[in-house]
Amino acid sequence: MASSPIRKLTPLADRAKSNGIKIYHLNIGQPDIRTPQKALDSLKNIDRTVLEYSPSQGFLSLRKKIAAYYGRYGMEFSPDDITVTSGASEAVLFSFLTCMDPGDELITTEPTYANYLAFADVAGVKVRTLKTHIENGFALPEVEHFEELITDRTKAVLICNPNNPSGTLYSEKEMRMIADIVKKHDLYLFSDEVYREFVYDGLEFISAGHFPEIADNVVLIDSFSKRYSECGIRVGALITKNRSITSGVLKLCQARLSPPLLGQIVAEASCDESPEYLENVITEYDRRRRVLIDALSKIPGVKATVPHGAFYAMVALPVDDAEKFCIWCLSEFQYEGESVMMAPANGFYITPGLGTNEVRMAYVLNSEDLKRAVFLLGKALEQYPWRK
Amino acid sequence: MASSPIRKLTPLADRAKSNGIKIYHLNIGQPDIRTPQKALDSLKNIDRTVLEYSPSQGFLSLRKKIAAYYGRYGMEFSPDDITVTSGASEAVLFSFLTCMDPGDELITTEPTYANYLAFADVAGVKVRTLKTHIENGFALPEVEHFEELITDRTKAVLICNPNNPSGTLYSEKEMRMIADIVKKHDLYLFSDEVYREFVYDGLEFISAGHFPEIADNVVLIDSFSKRYSECGIRVGALITKNRSITSGVLKLCQARLSPPLLGQIVAEASCDESPEYLENVITEYDRRRRVLIDALSKIPGVKATVPHGAFYAMVALPVDDAEKFCIWCLSEFQYEGESVMMAPANGFYITPGLGTNEVRMAYVLNSEDLKRAVFLLGKALEQYPWRK
Repeated sequence: MASSPIRKLTPLADRAKSNGIKIYHLNIGQPDIRTPQKALDSLKNIDRTVLEYSPSQGFLSLRKKIAAYYGRYGMEFSPDDITVTSGASEAVLFSFLTCMDPGDELITTEPTYANYLAFADVAGVKVRTLKTHIENGFALPEVEHFEELITDRTKAVLICNPNNPSGTLYSEKEMRMIADIVKKHDLYLFSDEVYREFVYDGLEFISAGHFPEIADNVVLIDSFSKRYSECGIRVGALITKNRSITSGVLKLCQARLSPPLLGQIVAEASCDESPEYLENVITEYDRRRRVLIDALSKIPGVKATVPHGAFYAMVALPVDDAEKFCIWCLSEFQYEGESVMMAPANGFYITPGLGTNEVRMAYVLNSEDLKRAVFLLGKALEQYPWRK
Repeated sequence: MASSPIRKLTPLADRAKSNGIKIYHLNIGQPDIRTPQKALDSLKNIDRTVLEYSPSQGFLSLRKKIAAYYGRYGMEFSPDDITVTSGASEAVLFSFLTCMDPGDELITTEPTYANYLAFADVAGVKVRTLKTHIENGFALPEVEHFEELITDRTKAVLICNPNNPSGTLYSEKEMRMIADIVKKHDLYLFSDEVYREFVYDGLEFISAGHFPEIADNVVLIDSFSKRYSECGIRVGALITKNRSITSGVLKLCQARLSPPLLGQIVAEASCDESPEYLENVITEYDRRRRVLIDALSKIPGVKATVPHGAFYAMVALPVDDAEKFCIWCLSEFQYEGESVMMAPANGFYITPGLGTNEVRMAYVLNSEDLKRAVFLLGKALEQYPWRK
């Protein structure tokens, strides 16, 4: 959402819109799914007369509900293991600041969620990356590739599972490999699992929290944003059994006083929503995923991996340069007064030159709009002068 | 609110309460004032069905209202000069990260708001302090004392005006001196003005934004928390005419995606509240201030400065050690089943040994409770074995 190529594209999209062109947005992670009714109702039912600070660690009542949620995933956490944050973003920043010193190194995969890099920069931490590839669905590399990156400054591994931007879901074998590496080298494992619910094809989600032998190494990053389509409430969580991390994080939490009061009220109400809400949401995303992949498969030269999680797909296009193509789609192309906006994948790669023909698509549009967006992509590829 | 002595005292207060003792809280900055009705109503009137991300810089509609508010203070800012943040805390952190590099130095006064130190630590910035003293109402020292602290690593001056914890309002002469220093040495001036409305005795508030010759140096830190008694919404703002600061801050804002959606809705509604709301609030705080100072003046050995702003007073007590006394009040003392909690001032001083006989009192209780709290303080001082 905040990768720099997107920042370049946004004014172009705005200009196209002001010229009357309808843009289909495949570029953003903002779901169109309705927020749970109980969450919306909770705002109407607030009877406080002072909108005051909440506890720095978050309301105990909310932390209890989060603990109960983890229980249903086979992970036992107490409310004291849980810190409520201003979105997953703050959980990432605070875990980096707490667990690493300036000059330390963090290993993560690329393509990656670009904002991790901004937070690593704040913490003065060097990011070293494991390349993953569209050809094998962005699977994790073998253990040797991990170990090549480990130095005496390596402090942590960061994964995003299911993955943004690739939609990859890590298998039990891959997670076991990471757990072994983390254990062997005594590293922290930051596991961003904000898309945990979004898993398809009957596959099982394996959390970093499912490996008791690394319980003290693991920091889970979580959020209500995507799960309940309430990105605006800014409520996330940092979960760890390692009390020295919790206590370090709490100091930062106290400095920023408290997480959002109103967001916590909404988040707590969301926990009370019936399980059908999420089941329906997942069914809907699964439908969109199939529509997207099916439609893409019919365009000559386009290669998409089938994502098993989250709501993103990385797609290789038969073009010279995906960023240039995305710019062209917004500035030169239209078909029947419509065009399509995608996120060029170079914003997700750190190593220059990687992913230059790839884009990330978020399937957060309804099926009809998705079909139309892919149709427009096909038309654009037909007309693009630098098609390969 | 988050100074470490307070963290030590909180469990003692909790224990006293569980033993049936009523505690009067003079220690916290959480106002009991009612949030504006328009703000509360705005929550009931939300008709969105998706609680989605808002723009990283904050809603334009809110930034326009903030700009209009500054216009009424004789400061001309455009919405583009304004960045909405998650509370003033985030504005402080982001301005530190944007304007200073690790190893740079920041000059501020002590006693100081303790959380600034935590954010300076995150930014890797060294804080150098100008001592201010209860004897002269914590007035700013002469220019020579400022200049003694300036090195080739000095990048910025940070003031809090009206001041937390001292309640001091800086005069036009003091502000002119700071402006001259900032101009002469080309430093940034971070001016935390979250208590801007809370000014008494007919004095005039002089903002760092009132000096056009340092417009490019100044970063104003603002918040809706205290002004409208809505600390929980987590909406603050960072205001500067320096576009390279705004653009650096925006990168951090994009990394954390967006400020709280719901808080912004409440903040915007608060801007529409009638001016009488704030007038009544200030009148009420002024009344409490007089009650507090009057009551304190009657206790032998107690010295309080008369604060001209914010809602805090620093008070020197005739005791060996104020932190020990505050602990004693919660653990050993009670009078008719009641006691009082204050913030030991050592949490606000950086230089060890300063302010050891001082406490900070927040006059956020109604007048009757304030009188009772000071009465209990008097009784405690009578009984305290290490009274001086």
